[in-house]
Amino acid sequence: MIAELVFVGTELLLGEILNTNAQYLSRQLAQLGVDVYHQVVVGDNAARLRAVLSQALSRSDLVIASGGLGPTDDDITREVAAEVTGRPLELDPQLLAQLEIWFARRGRRMAENNRRQCMVPRGARVLPNDRGTAPGLMIPADGDKVVILLPGPPGELRPMFEAHVAPYLAARSGGRPLRLVTRTLRFVGIGESALADGLRDLMATQTDPTIAPYAKVAEVHLRLATRAADEAEGYARIAPLEAEIRSRFGRFLYGSDEETLPQAVGRLLAERGMTLSTAESCTGGLVAKWITDVPGSSRYFGTGFVTYANEAKVSLLGVPEELLSAHGAVSEPVARAMAEGALQRSGADVAVAVSGIAGPDGGTPEKPVGTVCFALAAQGRQGAGPDAAALPAGAWAETVWLHGDRDGVRERAAVHALAMVRRYLLGYLD
Amino acid sequence: MIAELVFVGTELLLGEILNTNAQYLSRQLAQLGVDVYHQVVVGDNAARLRAVLSQALSRSDLVIASGGLGPTDDDITREVAAEVTGRPLELDPQLLAQLEIWFARRGRRMAENNRRQCMVPRGARVLPNDRGTAPGLMIPADGDKVVILLPGPPGELRPMFEAHVAPYLAARSGGRPLRLVTRTLRFVGIGESALADGLRDLMATQTDPTIAPYAKVAEVHLRLATRAADEAEGYARIAPLEAEIRSRFGRFLYGSDEETLPQAVGRLLAERGMTLSTAESCTGGLVAKWITDVPGSSRYFGTGFVTYANEAKVSLLGVPEELLSAHGAVSEPVARAMAEGALQRSGADVAVAVSGIAGPDGGTPEKPVGTVCFALAAQGRQGAGPDAAALPAGAWAETVWLHGDRDGVRERAAVHALAMVRRYLLGYLD
Repeated sequence: MIAELVFVGTELLLGEILNTNAQYLSRQLAQLGVDVYHQVVVGDNAARLRAVLSQALSRSDLVIASGGLGPTDDDITREVAAEVTGRPLELDPQLLAQLEIWFARRGRRMAENNRRQCMVPRGARVLPNDRGTAPGLMIPADGDKVVILLPGPPGELRPMFEAHVAPYLAARSGGRPLRLVTRTLRFVGIGESALADGLRDLMATQTDPTIAPYAKVAEVHLRLATRAADEAEGYARIAPLEAEIRSRFGRFLYGSDEETLPQAVGRLLAERGMTLSTAESCTGGLVAKWITDVPGSSRYFGTGFVTYANEAKVSLLGVPEELLSAHGAVSEPVARAMAEGALQRSGADVAVAVSGIAGPDGGTPEKPVGTVCFALAAQGRQGAGPDAAALPAGAWAETVWLHGDRDGVRERAAVHALAMVRRYLLGYLD
Repeated sequence: MIAELVFVGTELLLGEILNTNAQYLSRQLAQLGVDVYHQVVVGDNAARLRAVLSQALSRSDLVIASGGLGPTDDDITREVAAEVTGRPLELDPQLLAQLEIWFARRGRRMAENNRRQCMVPRGARVLPNDRGTAPGLMIPADGDKVVILLPGPPGELRPMFEAHVAPYLAARSGGRPLRLVTRTLRFVGIGESALADGLRDLMATQTDPTIAPYAKVAEVHLRLATRAADEAEGYARIAPLEAEIRSRFGRFLYGSDEETLPQAVGRLLAERGMTLSTAESCTGGLVAKWITDVPGSSRYFGTGFVTYANEAKVSLLGVPEELLSAHGAVSEPVARAMAEGALQRSGADVAVAVSGIAGPDGGTPEKPVGTVCFALAAQGRQGAGPDAAALPAGAWAETVWLHGDRDGVRERAAVHALAMVRRYLLGYLD
C-alpha cells in the first residue's frame, strides 16, 4: 500500500510552526509497512487543496490529510475532501449531540461555526476526538482507496492515529504483513566518504538489506533496512551484513540504533567499574552535560571542571602558570596538565581535557579558529572482565582542527573528547 | 514571486529526521515577501524526483530543493535537476581544485565519488559551501524561473541561504516592496496564560501589528508583526505596542528578537563589570555550557563547578558533610552552601547553584522528580553605571517543582538558574 501525507495550513507555509506531524505519521506508517512516497504541505486555499488531494488520490492508495478541520472559516479540509471523493456532506445528529455536551461540560457556549464540525461525507466513518472538538474522518474513495482526515494539533492527531488509524491499517494490510526492520550503526572518528569507500562493494551489490549512510555532526550513521514478517526475521537477514561491516570498521563503530556516544562511553565505563572526570575550556561544560544526559551517569561521573579562564586552570586544576605563558592555553602541554589536574583532584580513574579556539574571535595564523587540543590522563588498571584488557597509566595529548561555527566547533570538540575516552577504554589510544 | 520547496530524502519519508529545513526556509521566504504555495517531500528516487521537480517548475517561479547533493550513489538531486532544466552537467575544475584543498587540509583522501560534487549544470551559478563538501547551485530554467539546490544538513543550508540566496531574492523581488517586519519579545518567569490574560484587551483589538504568543521551554515569546515598506516604517508601527507591553510586563521581559537568556544575562553582567560562577549538580554543566555559548563570555565567566557527586560538593565547594546528611543534596541549605563555596573559590562576584532531581529515578514522596533547589550568593557592590543600582551581599535560596522528562527538567532548571541571576542583577531578587 502506498500512502501520501497532506498537511493543510498556511502557518506551515509561513514557517510559523514546525511540522512534527510529518515525522510522526511517517514513522508510524513505516512501522506498519506502509510506504510513503510523497508528503505535501499546502495552505488554506480551496483550489490548491483540491488539486493536491486529487493528485494524491491519483497516485496513492491511502491519503492522510491533517489540519483544517477546525471551526473557523479558513478550515476547509472537510469540504474539499468531500468534493474530491464525490460524497455530499450530511449533518451527523449524534456528533452534534456529543459536541453540545462537550461545550456544556466546559461551561462554554457552542458557536454556530462548530456545527460545521458535525458534517460528515456520506458513507464516511467518524473517528472520535477525545482531546478536542474536531472529529477525524475516514472517507472511502474510488478503487478501494481511502482518504483519512485528522486534526492538526499533535495532541489530538496522535491519540486518534493510534486508537483508530493504526488498527485499521494493520487489519487492511493483512495480506501484506511485511514491516520495515532497521538497524542503525553509529560511527565516530571516520568520515562519510571514507566509510562509503570502504563499503563500496557492499553498497553496490546489496539490495536487501539496503545500506544508507547519513552524515551527522562529527559522526556517521549507516542504516541497514529490510522488510520482513517480524523483527526476528528482519534482524536475521541484517546480521551477516552487520557482521561484515563490524569486521571492517568496528574500531569506529561505537553503538547501534538509539545508543548515543555519551551512552556508549558510559556503558564502557560502567562495565569496567571506572569513573571519569572532565576539564573543559572551550566546550564550557558541554562534555559534562552530555555525560549527565544519561540517567544513572552518577555511577561513573562525579566531578567536572569548567575552567574557561586561565586563572581557573591554575587555581582549580593546578596548571603551572609557566606552561600557560610558554605555550598558551590552547596547547597540548596545557591540555595534558588540565587532564592530570582533573584526574588528581577528582580521584577519578580517567580524566579528559579540552582546550581550543571555538571562535568567532581569538584565532591566529598558527592556531586558527577550530584548533582544539585534547588530553586524557588515566590511573591505569589491571584487566577487568572478559571484554576489558588491562589499561595503561599515563597521559596522552592530541590536536585537531575542526570546522564549523562556534556551536559546530564546540559540538565536534565534545564528540572528539568522548571518542578519545572510548579509544582509551578499548585500548586504541596510542 | 511564487516559490515551492522540495525536500529530497528517503529518511524524511521514513520519519527518521524532523524536517526543520521546511520551517527555516518558509520563514526566511516569508520575511523576504516571497509566497510559498507548496512544500513537497520526496525520496531518493529518480523518477519521482523528476516528476516532483517538473511539476514544481510548472506551477512556481522559484524552486528550492534541499538534500541529495552528497557524494554517495543515492544522492541524485544534482543530476535530476540538470535533466529537468535541460542543462548538461560539466566538471568545474575550480570546484575540483577547492575540494582537493578541502580534503588535503583535513589530512583526508578525497574519494572518487566526491568528483560528482564538482559537476555543474551548464550556465548554473555555484554557491560555495564553507561547512561541507557539497556546493549549492542556482540553475536558470525556462521563462525566467530558477531552481536552487541547497545541501540538506541545516548547518550547511542556513549559512548558504543567508549568504547567497537571500540577497539574490531580495534583489530580484525589487518590485514588491511590502515585507514582514517582526519584533519578538522574550519573557521568563511568567506563563503563557498569565501573559495572555494580562494582554487580553490588546490581543482582542489589535489587528496591525498582530500579537502572537508562543510557549517555549520555560519561556514565552510574543511576536509583534506588521507589513511595511521597510524596517524603519515597520518598527515605528510596532514601537507604541511594544512600549505598552513593556510597561505591563517589563519585569519578565528579558530580551527581544534573537537575544537569548544567556546573552541577556551576559549583557547585564558585562554592563556592570561583574563576573559569574556556576555550581551545578542535576544540570551537569548545562548552565555553564549555555553561558559559554555566547562569544566573548570570558569577560564575565571564568569558572564553573560540576559537582554531580556528593563527594565533589564537599571537596570542590566545601559543602559541610553534616548539611548533606541532615538535609540531603537536594535542599536549600546545600544549594546555598554550593553557591557560597563557588563564590569563594572562584573569586567571582555572583555564583548560582542548582541541585535537583531530574529523574527518571531518585524521586521520593517529599521530593518528587522535578524538585530543584537553587541558590545565589553575591559579594554585593556599589551602584555601577546609570542602569545599575547598588546590589546587596548575601545568599538566597528557593525551591521549585518543574515538569517534564529528564531533559525537560534539566533545561527548565538551567533557565530558572539564569533567570535568578537576572533577577539579582536587576534588584528583583528578595
